[in-house]
Amino acid sequence: MDIEEFRKQGYAAVDAICEYYATLQQRTVKPDVQPGYLIKSLPCQPFAAIAADFQTHILPGITHWQHGKFFAYFPACVTFESILADMYSSSVTNPGFNWTCSPACTELEQVTLDWMVAILGLDPIFLTSSGQGGGIISSALTAAIGARERALRVLTRQASGGALSLDDAIDVPAQLREENTPKLVMYGSTQTHSLGAKAAKILGLAFRALPVHAADNYALRGATLAAAVDEDIAAGLIPFFAIGTVGTTSTGAVDYIAEIGAVVRRHPTMFLHIDSAWAGVAYALPEEREPLRLAEVNEYADSFCTNMHKWGLVGFDCSLFYVRERRDLTEALDVTPAFLRTKEGDEGNVIDYRNWQLALGRRFRSIKLWFVLRSYGVEGLQKHLREGIEHCRELENLVTASPNFEIVAPPSLSLLDFRLVPANTSHTEAELNDLNRDLHARLVMHPDVHLTQTLLKSVESEIFCIRFAMGQSRTTLDDVKTVWAIVEAEAARLLLKRKAVGELTNGVEVVDAAEVVVV
Amino acid sequence: MDIEEFRKQGYAAVDAICEYYATLQQRTVKPDVQPGYLIKSLPCQPFAAIAADFQTHILPGITHWQHGKFFAYFPACVTFESILADMYSSSVTNPGFNWTCSPACTELEQVTLDWMVAILGLDPIFLTSSGQGGGIISSALTAAIGARERALRVLTRQASGGALSLDDAIDVPAQLREENTPKLVMYGSTQTHSLGAKAAKILGLAFRALPVHAADNYALRGATLAAAVDEDIAAGLIPFFAIGTVGTTSTGAVDYIAEIGAVVRRHPTMFLHIDSAWAGVAYALPEEREPLRLAEVNEYADSFCTNMHKWGLVGFDCSLFYVRERRDLTEALDVTPAFLRTKEGDEGNVIDYRNWQLALGRRFRSIKLWFVLRSYGVEGLQKHLREGIEHCRELENLVTASPNFEIVAPPSLSLLDFRLVPANTSHTEAELNDLNRDLHARLVMHPDVHLTQTLLKSVESEIFCIRFAMGQSRTTLDDVKTVWAIVEAEAARLLLKRKAVGELTNGVEVVDAAEVVVV
Repeated sequence: MDIEEFRKQGYAAVDAICEYYATLQQRTVKPDVQPGYLIKSLPCQPFAAIAADFQTHILPGITHWQHGKFFAYFPACVTFESILADMYSSSVTNPGFNWTCSPACTELEQVTLDWMVAILGLDPIFLTSSGQGGGIISSALTAAIGARERALRVLTRQASGGALSLDDAIDVPAQLREENTPKLVMYGSTQTHSLGAKAAKILGLAFRALPVHAADNYALRGATLAAAVDEDIAAGLIPFFAIGTVGTTSTGAVDYIAEIGAVVRRHPTMFLHIDSAWAGVAYALPEEREPLRLAEVNEYADSFCTNMHKWGLVGFDCSLFYVRERRDLTEALDVTPAFLRTKEGDEGNVIDYRNWQLALGRRFRSIKLWFVLRSYGVEGLQKHLREGIEHCRELENLVTASPNFEIVAPPSLSLLDFRLVPANTSHTEAELNDLNRDLHARLVMHPDVHLTQTLLKSVESEIFCIRFAMGQSRTTLDDVKTVWAIVEAEAARLLLKRKAVGELTNGVEVVDAAEVVVV
Repeated sequence: MDIEEFRKQGYAAVDAICEYYATLQQRTVKPDVQPGYLIKSLPCQPFAAIAADFQTHILPGITHWQHGKFFAYFPACVTFESILADMYSSSVTNPGFNWTCSPACTELEQVTLDWMVAILGLDPIFLTSSGQGGGIISSALTAAIGARERALRVLTRQASGGALSLDDAIDVPAQLREENTPKLVMYGSTQTHSLGAKAAKILGLAFRALPVHAADNYALRGATLAAAVDEDIAAGLIPFFAIGTVGTTSTGAVDYIAEIGAVVRRHPTMFLHIDSAWAGVAYALPEEREPLRLAEVNEYADSFCTNMHKWGLVGFDCSLFYVRERRDLTEALDVTPAFLRTKEGDEGNVIDYRNWQLALGRRFRSIKLWFVLRSYGVEGLQKHLREGIEHCRELENLVTASPNFEIVAPPSLSLLDFRLVPANTSHTEAELNDLNRDLHARLVMHPDVHLTQTLLKSVESEIFCIRFAMGQSRTTLDDVKTVWAIVEAEAARLLLKRKAVGELTNGVEVVDAAEVVVV
C-alpha cells in the first residue's frame, strides 16, 4: 500500500470508527455468536478483501466494552485521544528496549509517569526524577521477582554477620539461594486478585490466601497477616512478599494498609506491594484519598500499581507500576554484564526500561497517557471519575428502595454488589446463593445486560452476589436505570417461576463462574 | 472530544503520518538529542495543545526504524496495513483475557496463527485446530515455565514408580518441588539471545551458556550439550530446558537442531525450545527451509517462536509462539480452580488465552497479522524477504571486493558481519579488535549510519565485528551502497588518523557495547 492509498484507507478507517461510536448505543452489549463462529466463517487462506470483513466478521464478535450499558468486570474506557495516540505510536513503531531505541519513548514515559505521581498524590520517592524510586508502564509481576532477590540479598547480608551492606550483598551465594528460595512465601487475602496466586505459580513459590471477615468489609487485617507470618517462620519458612489491595475485585474493599505495613516492617525479608489496579486512579480525587488510605500507601508501599486502562480513560494496556527502590528491579532483571553497565544507566540519567521489566521490547504507550492527560487535564479526569461514583450512589438508592434486594457490601467508588433476598420470607444462605445463581443465569441470557457474578468468601459466610461495575465513560444514569429495571423484572419472573429456572442453572453457572476468577 | 472532532483529528493524524513517510528518507536515521532532552523541554503540567507537540517534541526524539538506511539490531518493519489494524483494534479496545471478553479477539488469533503454521511449513501438531498443540501471540518466557512444571511432573511420575501417568502427575508434592526446583538447569550457547539468561534470572534458576566453535560457524553442537548435561547430572543437577537458536543475533547461526534434539530426547525431564525470533519468518521461503533446518525443528521442537514484528511486516509487537503440547502451558499457568474448569476450555473449543500467557489481559494483535497477511499474501511476504536476502548478497560482493575488509562469518539471510583488516599488514587479533572498535566509534558519531557492533566469542577466538542487518521494507540497494560507502570512507580516515581516533574510543565503545547484549 502506498502513501496515497494509506491516506484513503486511513480516512475510511476514521469514518468507520466514527460510525461505530455513533451507533454503539443501538447495539447490544454482548455479541450473539457461538464458539467457533469466526473459524467457521473465514476461509483459512490469506488472500481476499479486508476492511469490509472487519465489519462483517469481526465487529459482530466484539463484546462492546465501550457501550454505556457495559457493567461487567471493570470498565475498560478508551477515549478518542487514546485512539489517536495509538495511530501516532504505531506510525513510528520501534521496540523501545533502551533509551537509544528512541529517546522520545523512554523520556515521555518518565515525564508522564511523574505527572501521575503528582496527580495521584503519591510520595515524591516514586518520582523517576527522585533518582531512587520510579515508575514504568509495566506488569507488576516484577515486584515479586524484585522482592525475591531483595530477600535473598537480606539473607546474604545476615549470613555475613552484617559485614556486607544490602547494596554490597548483590552476589547471592548459589547455596544460600538454593536452600532458601524454596522456603519463600507470598501473602494475600482470599480477595486478592488471582494474579497474586498466578505470580507465585509462575515463580514456583508458595502463596497463602489469608481469610477476611465480613465484619471488616472483606478487608485484610494486620493481625491476620502477623499470625500467618509467625506461623510460617516457626515452620522454618521465609515470608518475603505481601500484597495489600486498595479496591478488591469482588467488593472494592480496602485492606488495612498501615496494619499490614507494620507487620512487613518487622521482617527485613518482606516487601509490600499495593495492588490498586482498578481503584488507584481515584486518588486523583482529594476526597477519596483518606478512605483509600493514600497516606498509608505512601508510608509503607515498596511498590504500587494502578491501571489507566480500566477507569482511567486510556486504552488497554497502560498499567502504571511504581517502585520505592528502582534497584530492587534492576538487580533482579538487568542481564547486562557488569563491565558493560553504564553509570548513566544505573543512575537513571538514561533509563533502559528493559531492565525494569520482564520482556526486552516495549511499545510506545506513554503517548496515550500524554494525549489523554493533556486533553482532559486533571479536572476532566476528576469529572469522569466523579460521574461513576455518582451513578453508584444513584444505584444504591434504587437497590435500597427495592424490597426484594439487598446490598451485600458497602458500595465502593463505582462498584456495587447486590443480591436477591425475597421480602417476607426466610431462606438459608445456601438457598439464597442458589436463588441468586438462578437470577444471574437469567441475566447472562439477556443480550443487553452484562453483569459479573462473584462468590464472596469470608470467615463468617460464603455469599453469591452480583457485581454492578460502573465508570464507563459513555454510561449515563439512564443506562444504569435501564439495566437495573431489567434486573428487577428478571428477579420478579424468577420468583414466579423458581422451578423452571432451576433446570437451566448448571451449565450456565459453571461457565460464567469461571469468569469471576479473572475479573 | 466528540465524534466529529475525532473525525477531524483522525484525518489530521492520517495526513501527519503520510507526511512523515513522504519525508522519511530526507531525515537522518538517528535522532540528534541528548539524555533529558524531553524532560527538559516539556513543562510537567498536563494542560496544553497536543498534536503539534508530537511534531515538535516527540518526532525529533524518534530513532527512525522505518528508514531505508536503518541497519542496526534487526529491522522492525511496519506497514500501512498494520497501522490501520492498530486503528481498528484500539477503537474496540478490550482486555481480551478470555473468549467471552470478545470472541473475535480469541478466534482471529487462532485463525491467523494457524495460517502461519501453513505459511511457515510448521508441523500440523502446532495448529490450534489440532486440539493438542497450538499457537499464541505471546512471549516465549512461558516455555521455560511450562518446561519446569513438566519436569516436576516427570519426577513425580518417576517417584511414583510409574504408577502415575504424566497427565495424572499434575499435583507435584511440595517436598518434591522444593527439593528439585533448585537443581533445574537451563542450557543455551554463548550466542543465545540474552533473554535466555534473563528467563533463568526471572525464575531464579541456573543457565549455562555453552561454548561454540568458529569452525561450526558459531552454531551449538549436540556433543557440547550432551557433555554439559552429563556433567550436571553427575553433579546431582536436573537438566530441564534447552534453547536451540535458528538465526542467532550476532551472526544468524543455525544451531544443530537434530543433534541437540537427540540429546533432549534422551532425558525425559528436558524440553526443547527453538528461538527463531528473527529468522523464523524466512521459513515462508521454500528455498530456506533446508538450510534453516525446518524438518529438524518440526521433529524435535517442544516450542517454537518467531517475531512478525522484526522482518515480518507487522508492527511491534507480534511474537508468534507455538507449543507441541498446550497442556504444558495450561498446567503451568491456569489458576482457575479445578471445579471451575470447563471441558471447552481445557479442550480448546474455547481457548482462554490468559491460561497460555503470563498476564491476564491482552491486546487485539491478531488483526495486524490478519490485515498484513491478507493484503500481502504469501507471495508479497516472500518478495519482501527475498529483497532483504538479495541486498545482503550485493553487500557481500561489495565487502569481498574491498581490500581492507573481511567477512567474519558466512552471511545469513539478510545479516552480514564484517570487520576492518588492513591489507598488506599484520595485526594480532587484539589489535584488530581495537582497530574495529575505533571504526565503530566513528560510525556511531555519524547521524546517517546506524550499525550495531557485536563481540563474537568462540572457543577459538573473540572477534569484535560490525553487524549490517538488512530487511527493512523501505531499504533500496542504493541505501545499502550509500551506507557501505560511508563505512569505507570512515575506515580510510581511521587508517590515516589511527592515533587521534584512539583517544575517543573508550566512552563510546562502552555505551554502545551495552546495546549488543540486547540486540
